Amino acid sequence: MTQENKKAVVLLSGGLDSATTLAIARNEGFGLFALTCLYGQRHQREIESAKKIGRSLGVLEHRLINIDLAGFGGSALTDSDIEVPKDGFDLGDSTRIPPTYVPARNTIFLSFALAWAEVLGVFDIFIGVNTTDYSGYPDCRAEFITAFEKLANLATAAAVEGKGKYKINTPIIDMTKAQIILEGTKLGVDYSLTHSCYDPDQKGRSCGRCDSCRIRLKGFEQAGLKDSIEYVK
Amino acid sequence: MTQENKKAVVLLSGGLDSATTLAIARNEGFGLFALTCLYGQRHQREIESAKKIGRSLGVLEHRLINIDLAGFGGSALTDSDIEVPKDGFDLGDSTRIPPTYVPARNTIFLSFALAWAEVLGVFDIFIGVNTTDYSGYPDCRAEFITAFEKLANLATAAAVEGKGKYKINTPIIDMTKAQIILEGTKLGVDYSLTHSCYDPDQKGRSCGRCDSCRIRLKGFEQAGLKDSIEYVK
Repeated sequence: MTQENKKAVVLLSGGLDSATTLAIARNEGFGLFALTCLYGQRHQREIESAKKIGRSLGVLEHRLINIDLAGFGGSALTDSDIEVPKDGFDLGDSTRIPPTYVPARNTIFLSFALAWAEVLGVFDIFIGVNTTDYSGYPDCRAEFITAFEKLANLATAAAVEGKGKYKINTPIIDMTKAQIILEGTKLGVDYSLTHSCYDPDQKGRSCGRCDSCRIRLKGFEQAGLKDSIEYVK
Repeated sequence: MTQENKKAVVLLSGGLDSATTLAIARNEGFGLFALTCLYGQRHQREIESAKKIGRSLGVLEHRLINIDLAGFGGSALTDSDIEVPKDGFDLGDSTRIPPTYVPARNTIFLSFALAWAEVLGVFDIFIGVNTTDYSGYPDCRAEFITAFEKLANLATAAAVEGKGKYKINTPIIDMTKAQIILEGTKLGVDYSLTHSCYDPDQKGRSCGRCDSCRIRLKGFEQAGLKDSIEYVK
């Protein structure tokens, strides 16, 4: 594949990490196929963000697919009986896995990215996993990504027939939130389009108190930049 | 976990292989959680079969989930622009991957089974992959299963927290179709409930000509048993 038609499937959630990952892939010269997996999140706010980010970074195509995870439950993000933790349940505690963990989420997301990549004839997949802030999520670690990459190259006709070798790219895996924000800002990411809050109000304003908000706010503070999204408090 | 409450998630398609796999899991003393993944198959016939098989083998719970694969295309089973091969496209040709291959299908199915297993607190997953008849499908091979098992034990909170170790069980992987049919018959599988045809007519009758029908018919013949489902010809 020549440099001119390098293409990648990029998982895009509408959050800060995946928006930055998309911008990094673009900067590396990839034509972008964005994939947003909808999995019964409590809010549609993130989806709108994903669409705007995709447009702003010039994706070639953006697919949104429904994933039936809410039926399984087991997470504060898919099960309304489990409360989203506020005011620092797990920040900085790498020994506990937070209730916002969604069972097998990244395994499922990467499986769909792989399916689409195979149909497109694309061998690069980007995912914005990051271990610095959320060390508790098992499916954000490098060893998980390596295992998935190995699986991808055994699972697919395209790999087995020798058409290419799948690579799972994780450009922000070792960055701090501040580094991610600085990198994205340099690459032209408009963070006002992104959404991070686990528990926004009805107007879509971020709560400022859930883990995701707190990590975001701390990241902007450490980067010396202003976060221009709207918060409740 | 004591013998009495051994539980397993079993992928159940409505076909002959997964019905037999379900019966084997039951015979091994597992309480059964059946999972059927709907992925834009051209026909609903298989789903009805899956429901009947689940009931007949006494599953504790049967979940049917929609998987958005048709939107990707790339397979004769999900894309109406690709023709289902008839009269022996690939039978016995292990060097070609047939057009009925669905990109990353078993990776996606196993990912959902893993998610449900984690929520249920179950560590055994059964899948009716088989390499004898369909050697062309990369995601039916033992090395793919081994790679997924490794991934599962890195991907999930339950494994990382030491609650258990996931095992992907593939009891029929090395059997011939005749051996599968004989084993299932011994365990009480009612094969008249199963469906194999890739291209049934509007009344749900099997075509008798697609690869799946031909492998099935040959299996019954070699097992010395009569196939009691209805064929067009």
